[in-house]
Amino acid sequence: MKEKIERIQNVLQKNDVDAWIVFCHHAYDVHLKYLLEKWYASPTLVLVPKNDKPKVITSQMEAMMVNEEVYQVLSYKKGEELRELIVKEMSDFQDKATVALNFVEEEEALKNMNYDILSSGSFKALTSINKNLNYISAKDIIFDIRAVKTKKEIKNHKIAAQLAEELMVEVVESKIKSGMTEKELAAIIEFECNKRGGVAFDAIVASGPHAAIPHHKASEVKIKENQVLLIDYGVTYNWTNSDITHTYWIGSNPPEEVLRVYEAVDQAKEAAYEKIKAGVLGSVVEQAVRDKFEEYGYDPEKYYLHSTGHPIGIETHDIGYGIRRATLESPSKPLLENSIITVEPGLYFAGEFGVRLEDDCVVTKEGSIRLSNTPKKIVRL
Amino acid sequence: MKEKIERIQNVLQKNDVDAWIVFCHHAYDVHLKYLLEKWYASPTLVLVPKNDKPKVITSQMEAMMVNEEVYQVLSYKKGEELRELIVKEMSDFQDKATVALNFVEEEEALKNMNYDILSSGSFKALTSINKNLNYISAKDIIFDIRAVKTKKEIKNHKIAAQLAEELMVEVVESKIKSGMTEKELAAIIEFECNKRGGVAFDAIVASGPHAAIPHHKASEVKIKENQVLLIDYGVTYNWTNSDITHTYWIGSNPPEEVLRVYEAVDQAKEAAYEKIKAGVLGSVVEQAVRDKFEEYGYDPEKYYLHSTGHPIGIETHDIGYGIRRATLESPSKPLLENSIITVEPGLYFAGEFGVRLEDDCVVTKEGSIRLSNTPKKIVRL
Repeated sequence: MKEKIERIQNVLQKNDVDAWIVFCHHAYDVHLKYLLEKWYASPTLVLVPKNDKPKVITSQMEAMMVNEEVYQVLSYKKGEELRELIVKEMSDFQDKATVALNFVEEEEALKNMNYDILSSGSFKALTSINKNLNYISAKDIIFDIRAVKTKKEIKNHKIAAQLAEELMVEVVESKIKSGMTEKELAAIIEFECNKRGGVAFDAIVASGPHAAIPHHKASEVKIKENQVLLIDYGVTYNWTNSDITHTYWIGSNPPEEVLRVYEAVDQAKEAAYEKIKAGVLGSVVEQAVRDKFEEYGYDPEKYYLHSTGHPIGIETHDIGYGIRRATLESPSKPLLENSIITVEPGLYFAGEFGVRLEDDCVVTKEGSIRLSNTPKKIVRL
Repeated sequence: MKEKIERIQNVLQKNDVDAWIVFCHHAYDVHLKYLLEKWYASPTLVLVPKNDKPKVITSQMEAMMVNEEVYQVLSYKKGEELRELIVKEMSDFQDKATVALNFVEEEEALKNMNYDILSSGSFKALTSINKNLNYISAKDIIFDIRAVKTKKEIKNHKIAAQLAEELMVEVVESKIKSGMTEKELAAIIEFECNKRGGVAFDAIVASGPHAAIPHHKASEVKIKENQVLLIDYGVTYNWTNSDITHTYWIGSNPPEEVLRVYEAVDQAKEAAYEKIKAGVLGSVVEQAVRDKFEEYGYDPEKYYLHSTGHPIGIETHDIGYGIRRATLESPSKPLLENSIITVEPGLYFAGEFGVRLEDDCVVTKEGSIRLSNTPKKIVRL
């Protein structure tokens, strides 16, 4: 936790920002969890100044959860006291101090939603207390803190991915039986994730035609013989997520078409890995995947419904640069050294089936380090 | 889903509002899940007009998850198209139309955070597209939709509470062993919640002195003999949450002090139930609980760190009126008929132990209907 604060304070100093403020209730802002490493229900404000000890304003009920070695704690009993404490902190800033808040300027809105977190009422309330301050978007600070990972964070990602691989191959696969519902299987997967740290997101368990819906919600439908089964899940380990997708065949003889699609997706993944390297444009990697689908005769415009990879970190869809097509409004960016991204090509045939294979990797100067390895041939269960 | 839309449209007509718009990404706004009954990762907008068929704007990848019987679906591939679709919808309104958004006015901010959801960038972007509209806070609409429950919702609450009781008493209790970590036990509880529907919130498993921390996060600490064990958890059934807290004794002979505190908390709960009734001020119920603690010689100012009850529904801390002290700024409100609230007195002795007993109930004209019943005597495990 101390390391995090040091890193943030370095970023603040580098960007010439006097303080960063995170404020929300129910820990809706992921940075509250990042900073405090716990979940706070009550309205809670964290103020990280560029030099001094950071402060936490939270309810009396949750104040004892704060690590007092790192933070000075100010607690309130009633809502009015919360407001008084905030007014005092905002008034204590020097005139013209630069304060970063988690919002974006109007012209960035609808585009960079990951940075646009502070609610509109809280934004107005905070900025109206002291009008002599210079309020700026925390976008650059958040980017600097999260897009490139530290050694420790990369280590956490390795473990999070390993744990996810292991639980699927060593525990869950043998428990998958036709006749169980998608939801029952999702519960088993999340149990194993929880035992190893936590659940990164609600597991997607999509059988048969459901596998053609990329973000299908696990349902009461029973898993049947002679269908594909797509499972997208992740473990949270030390506040770091993994994100893996397997596609299985339930039964012994997958049809030619399924084998061919699986091969196309696997080869598209390999085509991506051939291009991934720090400094390479995400759009170049994306194109390689789309070309591979074309080569196999599957029109990506019709059958490939998403992009190839997103950054991953404290959020499953994290801050940074991923693998996607460039657009006029949002040109492609070069992949960042020591960022973690997913590689997840897929093909989706509405009403029939779908295949997605998703692994996580570290982007390096030389290429990438794979943190997980979904099988090259479809596994029959 | 159709019923929900009808109910919302009735509320819109009653409040003379032309449309309600919910907009977010990653389904951060709980109303997106309420409306669509699924989790959407992509920026997604739902527009419910007071008469016509509601619309959903979402990504191509998630468009097939929308129930087209209820919603008209407009999908985008790229971010620019999202903006164009939104601009078109906002421009199509009649001049001076009244549009409700999930924000609060500045003077309400920091107070009614449950209604202050729309991010500040999205708020600015949405309201700047068409300046001829009358944008109002959706606060009253949200209150009308959520504070008082329908018969169907009350039925869901009954089931959600029953499932939570059953999984604890019939399954989990026999699995609790000293030597297991709080986290391992939390994983078991969440597995059982998931099997029955879903997890309402991260289970709190607090052993020994951790039980004195009301929102303790389950840790790697091992559960030991001769300690209390506090478990706060809930099942989500049909998008409806339960919220229950048990306090156990690990071992056969709880000390007198623990027995006495347990009795005080149980009696405080009974004192609350004696007062709960539609129309009674929440502060009157709160006072009864505090008086009971005084009677037992436990100063509530020192040992009772929170309020007695919150509304519960699609969020664990839901919209409506709960049981708490009145303050100058926020006077107490009469409990609403057919609202669901928790009743959860507790006593906390820092560094030693804590006891909380939490049940859910329906507020009725005559009093209340209890949806769960934590034991009157401490259970030894």
